[in-house]
Order: sequence, then structure tokens, then C-alpha cells
Amino acid sequence: MTIPKAALIAFALVAAAPVPPAPAPAPSEIVAAAPAGDWVEIPVSDLLVMELSPDAKGKARRVVIQLMPPPFSQGWIGNIRTLAAAHWYDGTSINRVQDNYVVQWGDASEKKASPTGLVTVPENAYEFDRPKADKQTDTVLIGKDTYADVAAFFADWPIATTLDWLGPSNDARSASARAWPIHCYGMIGVGRGLSPDTGSGAELYTVIGHAPRHLDRNIAVVGRVIEGIEQLSSLPRGTGPLGFYETPEERVAIQSIRLASELPAAAQPHFEYLSTESDSFANYADARANRRDPFFIRPAGGADICNIPVPVRRKVGG
Amino acid sequence: MTIPKAALIAFALVAAAPVPPAPAPAPSEIVAAAPAGDWVEIPVSDLLVMELSPDAKGKARRVVIQLMPPPFSQGWIGNIRTLAAAHWYDGTSINRVQDNYVVQWGDASEKKASPTGLVTVPENAYEFDRPKADKQTDTVLIGKDTYADVAAFFADWPIATTLDWLGPSNDARSASARAWPIHCYGMIGVGRGLSPDTGSGAELYTVIGHAPRHLDRNIAVVGRVIEGIEQLSSLPRGTGPLGFYETPEERVAIQSIRLASELPAAAQPHFEYLSTESDSFANYADARANRRDPFFIRPAGGADICNIPVPVRRKVGG
Repeated sequence: MTIPKAALIAFALVAAAPVPPAPAPAPSEIVAAAPAGDWVEIPVSDLLVMELSPDAKGKARRVVIQLMPPPFSQGWIGNIRTLAAAHWYDGTSINRVQDNYVVQWGDASEKKASPTGLVTVPENAYEFDRPKADKQTDTVLIGKDTYADVAAFFADWPIATTLDWLGPSNDARSASARAWPIHCYGMIGVGRGLSPDTGSGAELYTVIGHAPRHLDRNIAVVGRVIEGIEQLSSLPRGTGPLGFYETPEERVAIQSIRLASELPAAAQPHFEYLSTESDSFANYADARANRRDPFFIRPAGGADICNIPVPVRRKVGG
Repeated sequence: MTIPKAALIAFALVAAAPVPPAPAPAPSEIVAAAPAGDWVEIPVSDLLVMELSPDAKGKARRVVIQLMPPPFSQGWIGNIRTLAAAHWYDGTSINRVQDNYVVQWGDASEKKASPTGLVTVPENAYEFDRPKADKQTDTVLIGKDTYADVAAFFADWPIATTLDWLGPSNDARSASARAWPIHCYGMIGVGRGLSPDTGSGAELYTVIGHAPRHLDRNIAVVGRVIEGIEQLSSLPRGTGPLGFYETPEERVAIQSIRLASELPAAAQPHFEYLSTESDSFANYADARANRRDPFFIRPAGGADICNIPVPVRRKVGG
């Protein structure tokens, strides 16, 4: 087992921790105090900028999305890059807002021609096989999970794994090791029809409620909203079946979705995340599981991985 | 162990289930097909009706709340009944909307005089000791939980328990058995200051995001929103610290909060819930944990208790 120190600290989540003598910092205070070296810039090439039509007061509504880095869901993410580069999403709309579930967007007419170059991704890509050569240095355990053997962070994303994932990569068991991304709040998935359809990436949704983990391994997870989720989560709920809007007037127009790398340099957003391999993250995760800051009287002794969102912020000095 | 049949069926959630030959019903279809005898009317005396100011289009905004029945949180619930009977909440406002967390309401001035008769509830009331004579016939197991030994339904509410809760009530271990209500989406809790303050019930909040289970046993849970949650969850997010609105204009006025039993008989709402002790509920919970309806290709094999909301509906023929 080659689990790094940060992982072992995080794994201690499930055990009761001693109460420190001084008031303990809140998770947000731990994040604010993290040294610059614990933050990692998100490549601009992994960002999408979605511009909705202005709100009723004429105020711009922008949402920034981070696409998932390899190894997960890369077939769909390639399609999304193709669709965004072709400006295909421009003029589509938000068509569905279901309370405690999802906001979904795409072509309401279902007649818009697709750009060339989209691939059909097989269902087995919902899960990821463990690479033989994987050194596994960035799998950070969180521990107990209701939906899988293990919940963990892998390359700074919440994933679920089978127990075999945690053994040495040259172990025979690793052949059956599997992992898959988790549907936490703010995660983005790919709408699809009935199996064997897996969706192209033209129809997307984000989670605006309690993590709908039953969708894990049934739909591709391709990214997360890192800024502006409130522009989606506070939209009026649709009154049709599954929260679809019943009239065209209710839909919210999408002016554009752009790869950030296509924007002029001065308009490109820059974000950074707190490395899940850092000591700061381990302390943050521990504090999410065991609140000892003054408001709390009883630390929980554990945390659901979706209650440990990876801290993301505008790049400092960027 | 005196766990009823429905409990045993629900406990089987964590095991893989065989795939049936015909298309399986979705959870919503199981609920729709439940016989009338599986539904239980919620006493009108346990309902609160909250009327917000009309929305920008002049449309009424109503939220219906179900107060938790005994044994949980009754000190605070008594206070809430006193406050509602005194019409104390009328003219207060929604002051805080924090994305993926809570909507909170109360007296923004913090100067409104309280009615007489409010009690101070001790912190040990966040948990509930098991009554010696409890026959435990309505504890319905769900199983694995990240935050407690066991997640279960007790009198149709999601609770967490220690393992001792599940033994016979005359067992010596039952002296240490504890249970407490769970902060799922839509649950209502009592705002408070720093310990030892436990809040009176004048300041309330509801959950509008991923279950904030770290609040369990740190704040009183007193009820749940059973209709109109979207009137709260779709409000604009506050831009101040913790999602508080920064200007009085942003606050949403609460016209009134009434005990439904105080309303004229014709205006009293009538609701019913699907008994968690019924076979229909067991089938519903199993389907939430193992989706076999046509859209799904891989049942999850388990479910977080907050992903098994108790079905509630307007009373049929009522």
C-alpha cells in the first residue's frame, strides 16, 4: 500500500479525535490559512464559461465549469470540447429544473444538427479500470461510504472505488479494481436516452440537491460547476413531469458556452483548487468530519464525501 | 429483536437483488400504486402554514410544514406552537439563503418581544433516550450510514441510532441506546447562538442542499417541509457572510405562519404519508436503493437514508 501521509490523516476521520485546548478553526478558516503551495491552478483549457441571458434586472449570469481531467469520462469530454468549439450550445436553453435533483440544459427542439467528430462512448466508460502502472500516489482515502466499498479523492475529484483499488498495482486483484466519479452537489453529468445510449454531451445537467448517487455508473460525470452554481440552483422549478418547463417562455436562454481558452487572454478566468494531497486539505477534511469550532458541541466523527467539497477559488494574484 | 417484516425487507437493501424478468417499476410508480391502507393522515394539529409575500408576478407563495411528532424535540416544538398561536412570526422575514445549505427565517431586528410561555430546552434533548417500555415495532432499519451506527425510520421520520437501540428494550444495553433525527433535505431546524443556548424556535431554517449531517445532535430538528419547498429553495442566494441578505430589500416578508388547526375548516390542508411500516414503503425503499426501471443499467445496491424521502401527498378524497 502506497497511501501518502495526507491519506492516512484523512482516513483517521472515522475515529474520534481529542478535543484541542484552544478554539479550533472552522473548515473555512483552515482553507483561508492554507499556504500558496497547497493550491494548484486549474488549466484554462479545462474551463468552460456559460453565459445565460441576463436576469430580470438586466444583470449578467455567468457559470464557470471545470471539465474532469483524465482518466475519467474522456470520450464525452472530447465531445463537449467539440460542441463548445463549434459554438453548438449557443442559443440552446435551460429546460428542466427539478427541486432537490438537477438543472438540465440543451437543445429543446431536439433538431439542431450536431457538429462532425462526435464519438459514441460505450457504457463501460462509466467506470474506470485501474491502470497497471498507476503509482496511486494521489488516491486519498475518505473511508466509509454508503454506495461503494470506499470513497476517495483521486486527482482532486471525489470517486468511489472497489476495495481492490487500494492494493498494490502489481497485485493480481488490481485486474478487477474499478473506480467511478461521484454525483455530488454541483457535479455535471451527460443526459442520455435509454441504454445502450450513453449521450453525446450535447445535453448536460448539474446536481442541485442531495447527491443522487443512484446515478453513479449509470450516467457519465464530466465536470463540476466552480463558480455561479446559484445562477442555476435558484432558478424557478419546472412544473412539468421531472421538472421540465411547460412553456418556451419559462426556459432560460444560453447565450454561449465557450472553452475559456478561446476567450481573449484578459477575459480568461483563472481558478485554483486546494490539492487533496496537501496537509491543508487533510486538516480541512478532518474538520469537516469533526467540527470543533465554537458553534459545535458534538463532532460527527465522519463525513460523507459529498460533504467535503474540494475548495476552489479565483486564483490569488492571477 | 422485534424488527417487523417491513424492516427486514428494507434491511435487504444492502444486498444485491436479482433482476426481475419484466420492467421493474420506478419508485414513484410503487408509491402511486400503494393501496389506500398504506397511507396515514397527518394530524392537522401537526401542520403549520407559512404565507410569504407574493412573488414578483403577484403569485401567492405558501409553504406547509409538518411538525415532528413525539418523542423528538418536543420542547422546541411546544415553543413553536406557542409562537405560531401568538402570531409572533407574522411580519418576520427570510433573512438568509446559503446555496447548498439552508434558508433561514426569523426576526431580522432581533428586538421583537417573545410571547410568554417559552421554555428553555437543554442540550441533551438533541438526542433521545430509548424508553424502557418501547416495543420498537416502528423502527424500520435502512442499514449503512456514514454518520451513525444505523440509519432507520422511526414513526416515519429518518433517525440515526446507536447499535444498542436495536436490541430488546429490556436488555441492559438499552440504557445507553440513543437516537436523533437526521438533517435531510427539507428538514427544519432551530437556529441558536453559541452553547449552551439551544434556540427557542423563533429562528428556524430548512435544508436546501446536501444533507448537512454535521448539524445532527448539534441543533434541534423539529419538522419538515411537505409542500412548497421550491418557494424557499429557489430564492436568490444572499451575498453576505453565511448567505445572509445584505439589505432589508432583499429579505422576503413572512405574512403569517399559522397552526393549520387555527384556520377555518375549509382552508385546512390535509396530507397523508406512506407508512414506513407498510410493504409499499419497503418496496419503495428497495427500489430507491436498487433502481431496476428501464433507464438504469446498474442498481446502486444501497441508499443513503436522505435519498429515501418519506412520500407525502395531499390527502386523496380529503
